[in-house]
Amino acid sequence: MQLDGQREQNREIERKYLIRELPEDLRRWQHWPIAQGYLATESAGRQVRLRKKGKQTSLTFKVGRGAHREEREINLSPKQFAALWPGTAGRRLRKMRYEIPWRGLLIEIDVYRGKHAGLVVAEVEFPNLAMCRKFKPPGWFGREVTGQKAYSNVRLANE
Amino acid sequence: MQLDGQREQNREIERKYLIRELPEDLRRWQHWPIAQGYLATESAGRQVRLRKKGKQTSLTFKVGRGAHREEREINLSPKQFAALWPGTAGRRLRKMRYEIPWRGLLIEIDVYRGKHAGLVVAEVEFPNLAMCRKFKPPGWFGREVTGQKAYSNVRLANE
Repeated sequence: MQLDGQREQNREIERKYLIRELPEDLRRWQHWPIAQGYLATESAGRQVRLRKKGKQTSLTFKVGRGAHREEREINLSPKQFAALWPGTAGRRLRKMRYEIPWRGLLIEIDVYRGKHAGLVVAEVEFPNLAMCRKFKPPGWFGREVTGQKAYSNVRLANE
Repeated sequence: MQLDGQREQNREIERKYLIRELPEDLRRWQHWPIAQGYLATESAGRQVRLRKKGKQTSLTFKVGRGAHREEREINLSPKQFAALWPGTAGRRLRKMRYEIPWRGLLIEIDVYRGKHAGLVVAEVEFPNLAMCRKFKPPGWFGREVTGQKAYSNVRLANE
């Protein structure tokens, strides 16, 4: 495993934070409503997720936890998505996703809707572990919750 | 739930048997090599399976056990399949599938390969529960193993 080189294929390196106060004028950034649900989940973060982000539909396989995990994603046609989506009943969540460019990185802010309304979380993905370790969050970020199960989307969807 | 009417949408009604002796000249029936693997599995038979049958690639979601379960399947493009298949490493099996028409039903015979070589199983799917209950297996069928975890493909793939 190459630790400090290029972003390894199919690996994501990211950190997650609660948000103390939202940046002003959030809606000037690109944003999309997201609906997602889980077909199956196992311990160790193994999961198969369906997601609709704006009009884009996808299926994502993930395994592993924390700052370093394997991820494989495919786009689905609307028809493929519609055939599978009922299988996620009772295991879904909704949020608005804002994407904010910040010092060469991308901050993704998720403002949850529905049963988790009030929860706001930011995720930052890094091209390598060195940048991940050195990251200094902006002042409006709150507590780091990377790898905390209570803030995993799987957990939130099943609550 | 409609018990004796038409095959309910997205439900499969089937029985599974060991095979005492294979019919003669098996290869005159339609047959395809199958490779399948599991992205994620839960208890209660909840699973996401990838399958390549001949050249056809698909993703199937199942939940429930035994003679009556929910199933949702989509065809995948070769590119979609190739992107997800590595996620099934260590959870795969191979078999040859023969499809034999029999008294208005279809008998599917799976001759396992690789680590399960020697195991031969037949599945019969029924259009309704009445036909499922009345089914008299042909003489070359062996013991019924419907719903037995030891013969589930998930279990076999993980062994």
